[in-house]
Amino acid sequence: MTAIGRTRWAIPEGYIPSQSTGPEMLSHETACILNAGEKPAGIAITICFRDREPARPYTVTVPARRTLHLRFSDLEKPEKAPLDTDDASNFESDVPIIVQYTRLDSRQSANALMTTMAFAME
Amino acid sequence: MTAIGRTRWAIPEGYIPSQSTGPEMLSHETACILNAGEKPAGIAITICFRDREPARPYTVTVPARRTLHLRFSDLEKPEKAPLDTDDASNFESDVPIIVQYTRLDSRQSANALMTTMAFAME
Amino acid sequence: MTAIGRTRWAIPEGYIPSQSTGPEMLSHETACILNAGEKPAGIAITICFRDREPARPYTVTVPARRTLHLRFSDLEKPEKAPLDTDDASNFESDVPIIVQYTRLDSRQSANALMTTMAFAME
Amino acid sequence: MTAIGRTRWAIPEGYIPSQSTGPEMLSHETACILNAGEKPAGIAITICFRDREPARPYTVTVPARRTLHLRFSDLEKPEKAPLDTDDASNFESDVPIIVQYTRLDSRQSANALMTTMAFAME
Repeated sequence: MTAIGRTRWAIPEGYIPSQSTGPEMLSHETACILNAGEKPAGIAITICFRDREPARPYTVTVPARRTLHLRFSDLEKPEKAPLDTDDASNFESDVPIIVQYTRLDSRQSANALMTTMAFAME
Repeated sequence: MTAIGRTRWAIPEGYIPSQSTGPEMLSHETACILNAGEKPAGIAITICFRDREPARPYTVTVPARRTLHLRFSDLEKPEKAPLDTDDASNFESDVPIIVQYTRLDSRQSANALMTTMAFAME
Repeated sequence: MTAIGRTRWAIPEGYIPSQSTGPEMLSHETACILNAGEKPAGIAITICFRDREPARPYTVTVPARRTLHLRFSDLEKPEKAPLDTDDASNFESDVPIIVQYTRLDSRQSANALMTTMAFAME
Repeated sequence: MTAIGRTRWAIPEGYIPSQSTGPEMLSHETACILNAGEKPAGIAITICFRDREPARPYTVTVPARRTLHLRFSDLEKPEKAPLDTDDASNFESDVPIIVQYTRLDSRQSANALMTTMAFAME
């Protein structure tokens, strides 16, 4: 398993529902990051909004040969990711990674799921 | 964060349900557009149908470093986007952008979600 | 709007549920095809299975500047697309098109949705 | 139908729910693999985790002109795929294939679905 992927990714969709049916099925948005290479990945995330300047950088590290399923609601610095707000995200990594976006929405009695690969820059 | 993305995108799927369980969970289709660059994006949208000529152009602007989660039901000119109709959409931007498609369907008691990156032209 | 897309597409996922909650919310799988060009698209579809030879060709035409949301359950020749069976599909078009896959599953009281762009051949 | 696809694929998202509403709607994750070519595909799968070394290789074969909808829960060697655990997967095939990821989550009264093409290596 050699290093695979790209260093820049974008996810135009983003919205963390503030309501959930309970802690077991908490509404969340996740960026699933795979670092299939042999070096740790240092990743800087920018969050874009509709009507204000972006928030950045959020920094995370994914060790070699590991995956991190990053919940946007866990991002704290430079500021807490806002709830019930349209946003988008942009990833820049110092080694190739792969990024997939997933949302679980449990605002109603039955949860809903959606996923897509993020868009990889050339 | 430099300009990233493509200038032409397409979404073959399109269908705005006319019914919803309520205003909080309104059925909708969204084109999430990210303009990660430093210039505003002028975007012309074409909506294609099964059995008539396309409707165009719908025009939107996304400022630099901003995201717009565009609901197709908000498109008014040259004509209101039709409900309960199979359609598809085509985006042409004057600067690189990234486009993601999301549908929330709340015609039943529990909402359903789906998302995918739009298809980027070479 | 000039011709855009690719001539060969594949969808590894395929499964038409035989049960639904009713005709309004019929379970279905759809290949949403967009022909954004100026010539009609003649398309040959192959359906692959787990344990038998593929069924082919299913042929459809999408006029210029039109979209077709093709339900796999509407395919009749050379044979009816089977229900409750794992399958996959392969599209070959004589002009560039764009293909997106969507499934609505209404076997339970609330429908579920999923979608993805098909995989475009180089 | 000639050989199409790529030989290396990755899926950063992975999570097999341990609970389901029943056997008919068992929660599952699937890698839908299409081998549209004329030679059988020998595929080695690596599963990556958050906090331990990857498990590998899981090996599967997909005959020529066939699809395999592989449930991750059916993988037994070198070890059973763990439940309720964040993971990711990496596919290496000796001939071109196409890989799509689907999850059915039936932990609540209504099932939820999501799908996306896996990420194809260049």
